Amino acid sequence: MTESTVMTDTNQGGEFVKDITRMSVDFDRWYTDVVRKAELADYTPVRGCMVIRPYGFAIWERIQRAFDDMIKASGHENAYFPLLIPEELLAREAEHVEGFTPEVAWVTEAGKHGKLDQRLAIRPTSETIIGEVMRRYIHSHRDLPQLINQWCNVMRWEMRTRIFLRTSEFLWQEGHTFHAHAGEAQAEVDLILEYYRQLSEDWMAVPVLTGQKSESEKFAGAVYSRSTEAMMRDGLALQTGTSHYLGQNFSGAYDISFTNQANQRELCHTTSWGISTRQVGAVIMAHGDDAGLILPPKLAPIQVIVVPIFRDAAGREQVESFIDTWRERVEGEAIRLRVDWSDGRPGEKFNRWELKGVPIRVEVGPRDVEARQVTVVDRLTREKRPVPAAALHEVLRDELVRFQKALFERALEYMRANTFEVAKLAELVAHFRERAGFVWAPWCESAECEARVKEETGGVTIRNFDPAAEAGGDCLVCGRPAVRKVAFARAY
Amino acid sequence: MTESTVMTDTNQGGEFVKDITRMSVDFDRWYTDVVRKAELADYTPVRGCMVIRPYGFAIWERIQRAFDDMIKASGHENAYFPLLIPEELLAREAEHVEGFTPEVAWVTEAGKHGKLDQRLAIRPTSETIIGEVMRRYIHSHRDLPQLINQWCNVMRWEMRTRIFLRTSEFLWQEGHTFHAHAGEAQAEVDLILEYYRQLSEDWMAVPVLTGQKSESEKFAGAVYSRSTEAMMRDGLALQTGTSHYLGQNFSGAYDISFTNQANQRELCHTTSWGISTRQVGAVIMAHGDDAGLILPPKLAPIQVIVVPIFRDAAGREQVESFIDTWRERVEGEAIRLRVDWSDGRPGEKFNRWELKGVPIRVEVGPRDVEARQVTVVDRLTREKRPVPAAALHEVLRDELVRFQKALFERALEYMRANTFEVAKLAELVAHFRERAGFVWAPWCESAECEARVKEETGGVTIRNFDPAAEAGGDCLVCGRPAVRKVAFARAY
Repeated sequence: MTESTVMTDTNQGGEFVKDITRMSVDFDRWYTDVVRKAELADYTPVRGCMVIRPYGFAIWERIQRAFDDMIKASGHENAYFPLLIPEELLAREAEHVEGFTPEVAWVTEAGKHGKLDQRLAIRPTSETIIGEVMRRYIHSHRDLPQLINQWCNVMRWEMRTRIFLRTSEFLWQEGHTFHAHAGEAQAEVDLILEYYRQLSEDWMAVPVLTGQKSESEKFAGAVYSRSTEAMMRDGLALQTGTSHYLGQNFSGAYDISFTNQANQRELCHTTSWGISTRQVGAVIMAHGDDAGLILPPKLAPIQVIVVPIFRDAAGREQVESFIDTWRERVEGEAIRLRVDWSDGRPGEKFNRWELKGVPIRVEVGPRDVEARQVTVVDRLTREKRPVPAAALHEVLRDELVRFQKALFERALEYMRANTFEVAKLAELVAHFRERAGFVWAPWCESAECEARVKEETGGVTIRNFDPAAEAGGDCLVCGRPAVRKVAFARAY
Repeated sequence: MTESTVMTDTNQGGEFVKDITRMSVDFDRWYTDVVRKAELADYTPVRGCMVIRPYGFAIWERIQRAFDDMIKASGHENAYFPLLIPEELLAREAEHVEGFTPEVAWVTEAGKHGKLDQRLAIRPTSETIIGEVMRRYIHSHRDLPQLINQWCNVMRWEMRTRIFLRTSEFLWQEGHTFHAHAGEAQAEVDLILEYYRQLSEDWMAVPVLTGQKSESEKFAGAVYSRSTEAMMRDGLALQTGTSHYLGQNFSGAYDISFTNQANQRELCHTTSWGISTRQVGAVIMAHGDDAGLILPPKLAPIQVIVVPIFRDAAGREQVESFIDTWRERVEGEAIRLRVDWSDGRPGEKFNRWELKGVPIRVEVGPRDVEARQVTVVDRLTREKRPVPAAALHEVLRDELVRFQKALFERALEYMRANTFEVAKLAELVAHFRERAGFVWAPWCESAECEARVKEETGGVTIRNFDPAAEAGGDCLVCGRPAVRKVAFARAY
């Protein structure tokens, strides 16, 4: 047993872990504790607005980069449109304005101007202003498709907030595309949904259901909406990405038209799609445990934390020069490594970096130096194993790949274990009285039956369904032949 | 003479160039024409707010990436703070609020809430809110320094706008750092100023004066401000970056304090610094010519445009398969290349891509195919030369490096040719009656003399000065011994 092993054991349950509510005791408080203690984000003196701290922002930056690379590879381009939308412009698409007005923050005064003639909305989303601007650049079928994306902040005045999931201001990307044909626009909706699935599963290690939303849950102004839905560790669903086919609803309202090959004017078919800083919330709630965060290596700002263990200056020097013998080789594998030279006992450091979800810890004590080895501990299994320094770079490289995969499989296993199927409303109600999870059931596609489920379960909704699948069976509520087989869940 | 040469000559002065006002005729209209016709940016239906179109945004993204890499390499971290700042918070630093209030846009109503209790400012800059948030994370000297940066939008309600240079909303980065010692904060100000110089000279190919602003021109709330000042091709100065030493002004107003090693409370010394989408304006105005933009290769979204020349389908196929023989090798050099297969005559395409400032054009016609060569034309000299296809990747790689250097040297040469020195106010007034440029002169450091220059010249200001340099001579206005040798200019 190495010295470091002893020190870990004596320090389990140190100050950091003590500060977090246990997940099993109160999931909501666990979430808030982790977000704040792991220094991801925090509330601010500005009502409903959060600060995303560097550690949280670095996760978001990696999510951004991954998705940005995907869309650029398929010809999408970034651009930037105004933050403010004149009220008259926002109001032109009736369903849209009705959906968003209750959440809009309004600018009514400015500088020396004083009171403005017209209220300006802080964008809650940008279909209206982007449509109004883009229409001026679309003349002929040769100008299509236009594949535009914007990374920005948006504002939706929320009554009840929850960091990363629902705040008055949040960061996101919003894609807006303009096409000559309906089929092409619909293919775009599915392409992006597939990117969202890849981003979630391959980068965030979070499995998702991809499918279509019900009419009542679709985006205000869309023909249909599709989404990715993830399961958190309390069994609740979180909608993580949405991709909308807008048909000609917005192009009609904003006159976004083009001259087709037969020289006739035609309205564009448009799409919009978005993911937000909510993704960071999904990573936290899909993977965390009582000790704190668990981050997928592909997104972790720090992939390997090295905790040096020493008693005095001479010992420190010895450990430091030993680390220097392999550090460069490890970083040469493009591994994000940090050595924690801060004051404090090793056990405190173990807890701090577990709380922060670093995938792999490397402990280096005097006996390790003597044996030219280190002790490697991963955040998932917490098993310790000695690794010869000479092989460390290869072991860590492989271990990070394995960790990413194991984390996904753990989440997939959890999702499967919490996925059920019922035939009748009574069963559904009984299920959600006892537990959470995804529950599949046949549905007739009527809004009445959907509303009935929501009412009887106190808020369970249809997350999405495969629009190409056979329903089979009869509607769980009314018993008429089902049209869809849908996934119900209680959701954030 | 290749076929392509003939076609270029017959198409010089085609539709695109015709659409731009000549720089020599009206620089302001030339600028607006280029910005719009090159599809960089545009006005929108929202007063004072611009759309940054994909071609312009791609330039900004490269500027962002270059600077972001610099600051991250020296330990700075990105974060995100609220868009909205409560009025009471904004008002706490007296000089600051006085400086910015005339430009603030106010949110006064929101969603179901209706009228808010307190007006919320859309950030014109974030010293106040970032200070208020960061103070909660700074307890001891061990928490310092904090090196924070934010990429975001800000809003300053402008009466007279100019795309990229002065719009009500713009994009920028704002760095905010917190230090235990004044000297360390001051070193940070200079480190960032040096990064701004490198970004400008090494990436944008725009030489700059770096130095300190006069008291009257400093940031509202700063102890001192330093800046980079570039010269546009009309001889006017453009302030492109600013780095401020805030001393304890903001830490005093917002109580940003720490416990020092002697266990006493002390106020932090803080800095802030920013560059914005104005940088894109600097690139346009420092390099452009009558034919349009000229982009530095390091920032150009397209570095090499290939214009295929053919008469029929068979010809096109021949040219296409020839391009395929070398395209991959060129892209293997990490060169951003595009082939323009759009409809239209080659001459129109030459003009379009000259307007868009693409550094190098490659023409490929049937005779080129036969000779296994292409014709390479650079945007600066417009000289044509045949290059064997086998060597193209190496020639282009070297040519892009040379182009970047040549563009910088051309701008430096222009700046030097338009830099002057005078001893007396009368000479300065006479100079600026006839022409623009930078004019160095000795100054006593009094606000009265500075104001007198501004008045007599109709707006000429001190751009900056080297705070370490000897002044020599007597003040150009009052004749008292000079304290500074300063650069005067008419500026945007």
